[in-house]
Amino acid sequence: MVRDSFIKSLIEIVGESHVECSEAGLMAYSFDATPNFQSKPDVVVSPANTEEISQIVKLCEKHQVPIVPRGSGTNLAAGTTPTQGGVVILFNRLDQIIEIDEENLTITVQPGVITKTICDTVEAKGLFYPPDPSSMKISTIGGNINENSGGLRGLKYGVTKDYILALEVVLPNGEVIRTGGKLAKDVAGYDLTKLLVGSEGTLGIVTEATLKLIPKPETKQTLLAIYESIDQASQTVSSIIANKMTPATLEFMDQPTIHAVEEYSHLGLPTQAEAVLLIEQDGPHSVVSEDIEQIALLCRKEGAIDVKIANTEEEANRLREGRRAALSAIARLSPTTILEDATVPRSEIAPMVRQINRIAEKYNVRIATFGHAGDGNLHPTCMTDARNQEEMERVEKAFEEIFAYAIEFGGTITGEHGVGEMKSPYLAWKVGDAGLEIMKNIKAAFDPHNIMNPRKMFAKETRKRIAL
Amino acid sequence: MVRDSFIKSLIEIVGESHVECSEAGLMAYSFDATPNFQSKPDVVVSPANTEEISQIVKLCEKHQVPIVPRGSGTNLAAGTTPTQGGVVILFNRLDQIIEIDEENLTITVQPGVITKTICDTVEAKGLFYPPDPSSMKISTIGGNINENSGGLRGLKYGVTKDYILALEVVLPNGEVIRTGGKLAKDVAGYDLTKLLVGSEGTLGIVTEATLKLIPKPETKQTLLAIYESIDQASQTVSSIIANKMTPATLEFMDQPTIHAVEEYSHLGLPTQAEAVLLIEQDGPHSVVSEDIEQIALLCRKEGAIDVKIANTEEEANRLREGRRAALSAIARLSPTTILEDATVPRSEIAPMVRQINRIAEKYNVRIATFGHAGDGNLHPTCMTDARNQEEMERVEKAFEEIFAYAIEFGGTITGEHGVGEMKSPYLAWKVGDAGLEIMKNIKAAFDPHNIMNPRKMFAKETRKRIAL
Repeated sequence: MVRDSFIKSLIEIVGESHVECSEAGLMAYSFDATPNFQSKPDVVVSPANTEEISQIVKLCEKHQVPIVPRGSGTNLAAGTTPTQGGVVILFNRLDQIIEIDEENLTITVQPGVITKTICDTVEAKGLFYPPDPSSMKISTIGGNINENSGGLRGLKYGVTKDYILALEVVLPNGEVIRTGGKLAKDVAGYDLTKLLVGSEGTLGIVTEATLKLIPKPETKQTLLAIYESIDQASQTVSSIIANKMTPATLEFMDQPTIHAVEEYSHLGLPTQAEAVLLIEQDGPHSVVSEDIEQIALLCRKEGAIDVKIANTEEEANRLREGRRAALSAIARLSPTTILEDATVPRSEIAPMVRQINRIAEKYNVRIATFGHAGDGNLHPTCMTDARNQEEMERVEKAFEEIFAYAIEFGGTITGEHGVGEMKSPYLAWKVGDAGLEIMKNIKAAFDPHNIMNPRKMFAKETRKRIAL
Repeated sequence: MVRDSFIKSLIEIVGESHVECSEAGLMAYSFDATPNFQSKPDVVVSPANTEEISQIVKLCEKHQVPIVPRGSGTNLAAGTTPTQGGVVILFNRLDQIIEIDEENLTITVQPGVITKTICDTVEAKGLFYPPDPSSMKISTIGGNINENSGGLRGLKYGVTKDYILALEVVLPNGEVIRTGGKLAKDVAGYDLTKLLVGSEGTLGIVTEATLKLIPKPETKQTLLAIYESIDQASQTVSSIIANKMTPATLEFMDQPTIHAVEEYSHLGLPTQAEAVLLIEQDGPHSVVSEDIEQIALLCRKEGAIDVKIANTEEEANRLREGRRAALSAIARLSPTTILEDATVPRSEIAPMVRQINRIAEKYNVRIATFGHAGDGNLHPTCMTDARNQEEMERVEKAFEEIFAYAIEFGGTITGEHGVGEMKSPYLAWKVGDAGLEIMKNIKAAFDPHNIMNPRKMFAKETRKRIAL
């Protein structure tokens, strides 16, 4: 618990109306989108600018009070839960687009801007910000930066990190630094920009970011292919790549997902389907139509029982609807939905999905898998009930085995959600003891008093979902 | 000086024939491509594998002997000179391509492989490794990784860092870690891969790397535009970007460079030309011919006095010849050539070139500027004589002022060459005192005994070129 004098100091910095201490207010920021991780903060503040954030950080450092920076709280790995109490910092008052630079193709924003607002704003000018996490309608760019968010366009366009050119950051000692610039090339010292992106709020607080933009693709076309076998779908992915094409979207749904989607949306997907691929290509008109035609041929050649090509934007939306509805369709089937993101090299998707299905059966848990086939980023999603302790133990064991297989296949425990508190017990599996050691040293180099989002990324103990 | 017993231990690790202690041998590795920085190592070793490197590092850590990893020594910022003596590690025995994975579009290589060998090998399979530093015919991929090398294709395709997916690294304590994977998405912990790329050998020794490949562009077309004013050339660059095109190459030469090239190569460049742009586009046939046509129109519209489009590969080679010959043409005009790489946002190229010319006049030094106009990465190149102490002092002052202007324009002290020892006195200008402090903390987090390429990046004193 923080003292009253600490709260008083916070009020002096940001003003009384921007400090929240009520029970209801603290409750609202005690959880994020991760089931079963809840922990109340001591206080929630909404600073107005970098200077106020710097003062808050200095105050917290002096009193060794934990700080949890929080965007819209869509985190799926308990990355924004105030596990150790302390101060939750909100960015709702830092929500301005500062500049669009059409000559250097950059946009400079405050961390509280909603991701989709950025996309819409630049597209109106014929420009394009590619990273499109599924949460983009509500997530903030600050959250995306802290988590290095991915999205559907990752295969062709990369992830958030690939588009962050410069940052303003408040360090854990309260000092403000600026990294990078409106520069495609900059090798002056260690790359703090790329180190900070994806550091989950454990190294500093992002207060401003300059993002790289590219010209908006001329057009986009959409295709849906339905398969009776996962291997045929997976073989199609390989064939597309082998034929030197890089689709803008290459999404996958397995049978349990298709069933859930069909029950929910009645799109007419055949029940015998074992896999669906949603494929989109964007770019110049001539290239897109040629690629889509060739991709349709490859789908059929690899054994697709149906290939639908959208001729209008309405048809395209209808084809996308199934994949878009996947999480909602699955979520309505059980009280608790756990969305994971074990990721493997593209070539290992079929064997990985088979392992996931085998593991689900072994532990008698319900798992549907969908995700980004083009980049091997799968979302095995468990339908369960957090109140059922016995089942949750089986869920935990199933995911443990899924993570182990992901690593065995040359993959990782998290492709785009982050480690947070939830996956911290597994981080050493991916990076090794020596890797974990060096990461802890980096953390200490930035934050010797461990005030920035403590207990995230690095497990203090092996607490997992079940050990609440 | 290291002791005989230390040399004996090295011989036990790598074998006598792979330890070099002769005066001539040490002399050969006492310098890199940076004028005026020379310093003899104590010993040069050529290990055969990761295990031997790990043993060498452990030995050096025990005796606190500096280690300088060295590829082909093409470094331009005194990044591979053994400033503090110690052991130079060569990678000539780690020169194997380990695997080409056509399904996941990756190539895995040892650090001693020549960059161009990688490009040629994958192009033969219809694949493409885009980073193309000018030194690619002799530089090693290990050197490129340590320096995060750029190249001519940076605007469209990015730099080395954008293509490094995974590393095997020997840490300064001798432990071996593996970072990343054949993965487009991986957010498990801090991004050690991107931190190590460009860390100039100060954090660890790269012993293996997995590189991302993309499909090889179908075709490429080349255009040369000649201008009587720098502003018109610069305006053309802006117009191309404003018209949503991203050329594969967008190179610039100023008047002194054109003069030097013309004297050397007799390409028929008009002597009144103040600027030349070499522009290339690659991609699908239809896109390339349309883009090149539109770019030619823009060049003329902005005032180009001549626009040449190559119709054959021979013609393209002829158009490229001037830019390719730039450094050689300049280098023959004086005993010492100092090639710099101050970099600015693309929009600031014209004002920056004007400042460079003004500064050259002010200090009465000869500077020709060429470089990558698309990404603002300029190469102001000074023709001087290192034996003339008084002139070198003026050269130093001129570059100091150039760096200061680069930063004033929102740029950086180095776009693709690295900080090394040479630019270490200027690093704080770019990253600030707080930024420098955090970088020093990161260095200490990896290398507490400061054995890995010491005195690089971080200046111990303000030693510069002149203070030998």
